[in-house]
Amino acid sequence: MSKSAAIRLHENDDVIIATQQLMPGNTLAEFDVVVADLVPPGHKIATRAIKAGEPVRRYNQIIGFAKADIGAGKHIHVHNLGMGEFERDLAIGQDKHDTPPAAQPATFMGYKRRNGKVGTRNYIAIIASVNCSATVVRNIANHFTPQRLAEYPNIDGVIALVHQTGCGMNSAGEGMQILRRTLNGYAVHANVAGAVFVGLGCEVAQVGPMVAELGSMEPGMLQTLNIQDLGGTSKAIERGIEQVTAMLPAVNAYKREPVPVSNLIVGLNCGGSDGYSGITANPALGGAVDMLVAHGATAILSETPEIYGAEHLLTRRASSKDVADKLLARLAWWKDYTARNGGEMDNNPSVGNKAGGLTTILEKSLGAVAKGGTTNLNAVYEYAELVTAKGFVYMDTPGYDPVSATGQAAGGAQVICFTTGRGSAFGCAGVPTIKFATNNVLWNRQRDDMDVNTGDMLDGVTMQEVSQRIFDAIIRHASGEKTRSEALGYGQDEFLPWHVGAVM
Amino acid sequence: MSKSAAIRLHENDDVIIATQQLMPGNTLAEFDVVVADLVPPGHKIATRAIKAGEPVRRYNQIIGFAKADIGAGKHIHVHNLGMGEFERDLAIGQDKHDTPPAAQPATFMGYKRRNGKVGTRNYIAIIASVNCSATVVRNIANHFTPQRLAEYPNIDGVIALVHQTGCGMNSAGEGMQILRRTLNGYAVHANVAGAVFVGLGCEVAQVGPMVAELGSMEPGMLQTLNIQDLGGTSKAIERGIEQVTAMLPAVNAYKREPVPVSNLIVGLNCGGSDGYSGITANPALGGAVDMLVAHGATAILSETPEIYGAEHLLTRRASSKDVADKLLARLAWWKDYTARNGGEMDNNPSVGNKAGGLTTILEKSLGAVAKGGTTNLNAVYEYAELVTAKGFVYMDTPGYDPVSATGQAAGGAQVICFTTGRGSAFGCAGVPTIKFATNNVLWNRQRDDMDVNTGDMLDGVTMQEVSQRIFDAIIRHASGEKTRSEALGYGQDEFLPWHVGAVM
Ligand SMILES: [Ca+2]
Ligand SMILES: [Ca+2]
Ligand SMILES: [Ca+2]
Ligand SMILES: [Ca+2]
Ligand SMILES: [Ca+2]
Repeated sequence: MSKSAAIRLHENDDVIIATQQLMPGNTLAEFDVVVADLVPPGHKIATRAIKAGEPVRRYNQIIGFAKADIGAGKHIHVHNLGMGEFERDLAIGQDKHDTPPAAQPATFMGYKRRNGKVGTRNYIAIIASVNCSATVVRNIANHFTPQRLAEYPNIDGVIALVHQTGCGMNSAGEGMQILRRTLNGYAVHANVAGAVFVGLGCEVAQVGPMVAELGSMEPGMLQTLNIQDLGGTSKAIERGIEQVTAMLPAVNAYKREPVPVSNLIVGLNCGGSDGYSGITANPALGGAVDMLVAHGATAILSETPEIYGAEHLLTRRASSKDVADKLLARLAWWKDYTARNGGEMDNNPSVGNKAGGLTTILEKSLGAVAKGGTTNLNAVYEYAELVTAKGFVYMDTPGYDPVSATGQAAGGAQVICFTTGRGSAFGCAGVPTIKFATNNVLWNRQRDDMDVNTGDMLDGVTMQEVSQRIFDAIIRHASGEKTRSEALGYGQDEFLPWHVGAVM
Repeated sequence: MSKSAAIRLHENDDVIIATQQLMPGNTLAEFDVVVADLVPPGHKIATRAIKAGEPVRRYNQIIGFAKADIGAGKHIHVHNLGMGEFERDLAIGQDKHDTPPAAQPATFMGYKRRNGKVGTRNYIAIIASVNCSATVVRNIANHFTPQRLAEYPNIDGVIALVHQTGCGMNSAGEGMQILRRTLNGYAVHANVAGAVFVGLGCEVAQVGPMVAELGSMEPGMLQTLNIQDLGGTSKAIERGIEQVTAMLPAVNAYKREPVPVSNLIVGLNCGGSDGYSGITANPALGGAVDMLVAHGATAILSETPEIYGAEHLLTRRASSKDVADKLLARLAWWKDYTARNGGEMDNNPSVGNKAGGLTTILEKSLGAVAKGGTTNLNAVYEYAELVTAKGFVYMDTPGYDPVSATGQAAGGAQVICFTTGRGSAFGCAGVPTIKFATNNVLWNRQRDDMDVNTGDMLDGVTMQEVSQRIFDAIIRHASGEKTRSEALGYGQDEFLPWHVGAVM
């Protein structure tokens, strides 16, 4: 067999994954395995003899326990692998371990801000407090065309952050808190050198109190205006243009300089996933995350509906009981949220999942969680909360891509890593979004939208190699190289604060 | 006293409203009233002797019952006016009455479509099935600049209808039904001569099934594309531009011609209301609605949170028990919707409302309901349902302006009449939105955004005169005169399908 007939996702794993249909007697030389059963592509093969009751690992994480003795080379699936006692045991902190720091600290070229944060881009953001100011915001931002910014080569642009809410909502509810955190998070974001908040005047989400929460910003770099105070649309646009124009010299004064990778906060996301996501792009991204963590950086896993029911995957890695408890509290919130909206959380493997080779909910969720690598879980954040911890952290978000990435960006992510198998069309406002294709077909068909291929892992390129490729791409794009979605103009229409609560 | 010291809202009313502070002994000659109490501005004065237990009318509608005998000229407020038995009696159909048709049917200049509908504008709409296609949609629409459309003078433009949802949601839930109704309603809208649906490919809100619900459109005038099928962003934009380009000659072939006003569907809305809204713009708009109904047209009242608790105002006018029951069912839905989102419906007059002169929940709600005039309630629609009934109808929407108007437009409204006291900055996508100022201060301060003043009712201009002014403005703008919000470029960022349900 060619060396692409199966794939190993972690050196500690008890299984390899077939990448084509295998027959009894096929020899997989580099894994030292002789196949003992008919194994469909995407399904698991034991690489060693496993005793009944022993844990089985994929991505170096437990996906279940052998229900019977399993010989080397045997097909592993629902007939011989189950959840065992695992589902009643959160095993908090049981897999906690030290991550040795990288020998040679890597750097990228970033914009150092006076408050110590480091940007990967240098934007001015025009922020709508309410949908009613969206058109004014767009007009202010659109005024600053590349031609008008030609004298300011260090400015990446003036972006419009508009949204659909800010009024017709409970002024004290969770929805308003989330909106404020999101807008304020963007205002203080390392990629945003200056911000103008634009309100209508009579909305629920008043600009004054919102901005008051921000604390001190650099002089002149936080401005506000209200359309009604100024006498309408045209005057408001004019004022906003003046405010931004006054900021341009100071924003342009920022220059890129070498800074340690420990300043990076990377948001992890996936959308339009396919059967390869959990085999190629996601675990390879996880490998890059382990490297980032070794360099002292931060990586944010999210998308709570995709880990629901498999929270053990994260609680085992929790650095403390507090961290695990916070995660469990968010899962409880979700159960209530979906129930009161007439739905339910159900992340169990479907018939189709099982046909594709996914045996347990742990293994299914691992497909998504694999993005987060294998280091300790150091903190859990609510949606759009400011991320301050280092290492691997979790932020509670929906799985819906634009909403999830907007929360990560508001929390401080200066790079988003996004894996896709079906071909996502997404870019995050103000934050470079690197798109990883999970398979060669997508890579070739939709090159226009994809930044990095990981599909060649199925041709035998090692995960280590692809993880390094991803790490390098993060450094490159953090240092200024435009991503495909930036080149295509994505971002402003994909700024989506999570909408929770009634629209009244 | 000058004749602007008080205002009469309907000839059948038992009260007039003070527009300045009045003292005992002041004579209001044109109302034949001598003021008998101290009456603050905005408060009510009895124009005749009212016996205890008798109903008291404002806008020709019952706002409560006298708790004691009230002499002519006396101040009417919480001390002598209450709800009486009214709150337990929906009095379905009790105020039902015939509206005589207008003697001289009025016309406007509209675009007659082959299916019998009549447009007030002539647009091509690019419709996103999901947020993931928003940037492609924007780019297709933005290609068709005024310069590129110069050869097609009868086309008003190519508009982008993008939104924040379409995935990360229950595929069978209420939220998805509402989204489909809204997008499909726009596709078949009389102002939309051609439509292109743009999907990503892997989203929950699939384009194929959505478009299948539309039935037959004119040949070539409904196109679809999926970004993933076409190999990415740039190719999808290119295809969309080709599809629109092919439509241009047929769309440009439509010409305005005189058509009866009976073809109009007018959406009624208010936002940024003030103490004058219920005295000037809203009742004057109601007068214009009564004229529209006499001409055989349709007018849609909405904004359910603002009538909650005062549904008697509408059930009394219901043309049938079915119509009343449908309204009550929507109110029950709202009670549940807000409860499950951790809030409650409460539209009772606040301390501030009472200080301003509003006595009962009926009177408060009448401030909003007055926009709907006085004719029979002929039908009740859910959000974004296609409106087919003639006369005065109700559509259940939130009060939040952009969401409410988007539902009315999706239901078929070709004109939106929008009253505002604080100065709203709103324009509806594809549908001319006429903005009515409730007071002279706003009119003078924010002329840029306002189309018509009604504040001079406080200077003694009669409601009949202002209602005629509104009716004339509707005809004028329906016939092609641009509204202020159209001139300022509002619409695309204000397209907001109601978001109901969990974001997952
Ligand atoms: Ca634009
Ligand atoms: Ca995902
Ligand atoms: Ca996602
Ligand atoms: Ca209102
Ligand atoms: Ca409203």
